[in-house]
Amino acid sequence: MPAADTEAVAKVRARDAVLTKPAGSLGRLEQIAEWLAAWQGKAPPAVNHPLVAVFAGNHGVTAQAVSAFPAAVTQQMVANFAAGGAAINQICLAYNLGLKVYDLALDIPTGDITLTAALDERECAATMAFGMESIAGGVDLLCIGEMGIGNTTPAAAIFAALFGGTGADWAGPGTGLDAAGVSRKAVAIDAALKRHAGILRDPFEVLRRLGGREIAAMTGAILAGRMNRVPVIVDGFVATSAAAILYAADPAALDHCLFGHVSAETAHRKALAKMGKQPLLDLGMRLGEGTGAALAAGIVKAAAGLHSGMATFAQAGVATKGS
Amino acid sequence: MPAADTEAVAKVRARDAVLTKPAGSLGRLEQIAEWLAAWQGKAPPAVNHPLVAVFAGNHGVTAQAVSAFPAAVTQQMVANFAAGGAAINQICLAYNLGLKVYDLALDIPTGDITLTAALDERECAATMAFGMESIAGGVDLLCIGEMGIGNTTPAAAIFAALFGGTGADWAGPGTGLDAAGVSRKAVAIDAALKRHAGILRDPFEVLRRLGGREIAAMTGAILAGRMNRVPVIVDGFVATSAAAILYAADPAALDHCLFGHVSAETAHRKALAKMGKQPLLDLGMRLGEGTGAALAAGIVKAAAGLHSGMATFAQAGVATKGS
Repeated sequence: MPAADTEAVAKVRARDAVLTKPAGSLGRLEQIAEWLAAWQGKAPPAVNHPLVAVFAGNHGVTAQAVSAFPAAVTQQMVANFAAGGAAINQICLAYNLGLKVYDLALDIPTGDITLTAALDERECAATMAFGMESIAGGVDLLCIGEMGIGNTTPAAAIFAALFGGTGADWAGPGTGLDAAGVSRKAVAIDAALKRHAGILRDPFEVLRRLGGREIAAMTGAILAGRMNRVPVIVDGFVATSAAAILYAADPAALDHCLFGHVSAETAHRKALAKMGKQPLLDLGMRLGEGTGAALAAGIVKAAAGLHSGMATFAQAGVATKGS
Repeated sequence: MPAADTEAVAKVRARDAVLTKPAGSLGRLEQIAEWLAAWQGKAPPAVNHPLVAVFAGNHGVTAQAVSAFPAAVTQQMVANFAAGGAAINQICLAYNLGLKVYDLALDIPTGDITLTAALDERECAATMAFGMESIAGGVDLLCIGEMGIGNTTPAAAIFAALFGGTGADWAGPGTGLDAAGVSRKAVAIDAALKRHAGILRDPFEVLRRLGGREIAAMTGAILAGRMNRVPVIVDGFVATSAAAILYAADPAALDHCLFGHVSAETAHRKALAKMGKQPLLDLGMRLGEGTGAALAAGIVKAAAGLHSGMATFAQAGVATKGS
């Protein structure tokens, strides 16, 4: 995998040091400029073609009554994305982000993970490869999001398989389950862990058995970002489960990723902590669709504009510290 | 003072409940839509003419060597704002925010607060009135920021006078003081508190004696926002000291204000906690110029767009929870 471009980072630091502001005063925005340069492999970095990629899939595990919404909503929301009526559409408009929605065989739900593998090997590999296409066409910042009724259950199962713990440790209300629903979800996760016990040592096997199409596609998209020098912003609970597959394979595999926000979905904070990741925003959101990543992209765009657009002390005729 | 428009808030809540997302899943963005409606007095709220108002002033207390930068930088940075080279210019570009810079008699620094009052009564009142003009011309969201070498010293003195404590409790490195500089600043704040002791019971007298022109103008601007139904986003440490004057006069006087971020300047978090305010962002910034408020305005614009632009379940043909 490509490494950080340390030369580009050094150039960003050198320029940042002479911009008309006290050293360090833009805090995390300065780190973001360095991160963009490190993974785009150029200085100054630029965000001219940001894309939000939303992957949609359906899940056999919805048969276990693990979601507050009917499974038909996945398809209905994909139509809503196309019509411009969803939350992610408004955020993309606000920050001028491109939006592509990938409908992943919605009429063929994955296997119910409490009973069988979500995907066979060929489906899983093909779906990852499909997700890798999302960085095509000159994308220079990729936001990863998803839509899939029931998908916080496979995401929680993935976290449990990779990081340990039981269903109760990782199950949350998702789109709005009551306490009984959260209990059903925990039971379903435990059943899935038991069903696939002993064959979960390989992270990609965890993905195939416990995951889902949108999760596999996001794993592929994140990997493609790394291979093609496109920095990636990961959305919330479910998108993070796709990233966690790569982390389990190699902790350095996510160095090109920014985690856009910490979700209100209970265990997201724990998953980020397990990987040592600091989310950018903490706004109590838990919608998915890439909304948290897209909000963060608005800040990343500003950080790129600050770094490339500000005048230097010399250009502006501003005196420096202690002068 | 005008109160929150509870009818507009009720309308926002009713619409929010039927938008195509799980209830509550946009977290703080939903609260922001309610806050905008409450203080604009209309539903749906709209952010069509956001303005960042940056007030610049100079300070006699710089004679006490309380800043890492020379006082001439205030004027130089005002020129940098005009030329488009400063940090705030780039953020305004990124989010399409208007920007006005108010040069407040930069060639006449305020009195050195360790020796005398910053402003006389007429100057203080006139500067507040001048700040009130910033909401003119159809502004529907006002971001408050400042530029003024040395101004974290008067801001810290104001916090100490209003909330208690000594110079050491409120002094921080500002633009980059070393430990000796922070000590000098704490000594200067203590000297100012001693010089004006016994005549600091009226918050507006605190403003006049310990403040500065840009601080008085920001106090006026925040008050004008309330009187004219323009929601206000307050920037960091110094802007918050201007808001704190109004809070000390009436804690409800800041209900139309959002605190854009918590600054890395040490005592900002404490000042916000004293007033029970939850900042939107926590990005380690400490630049001033309204940069934290403007970044927050990017999120507020998105929140307004989400509320007004999203489709309802009925419009989009999406099934609701439990259906």
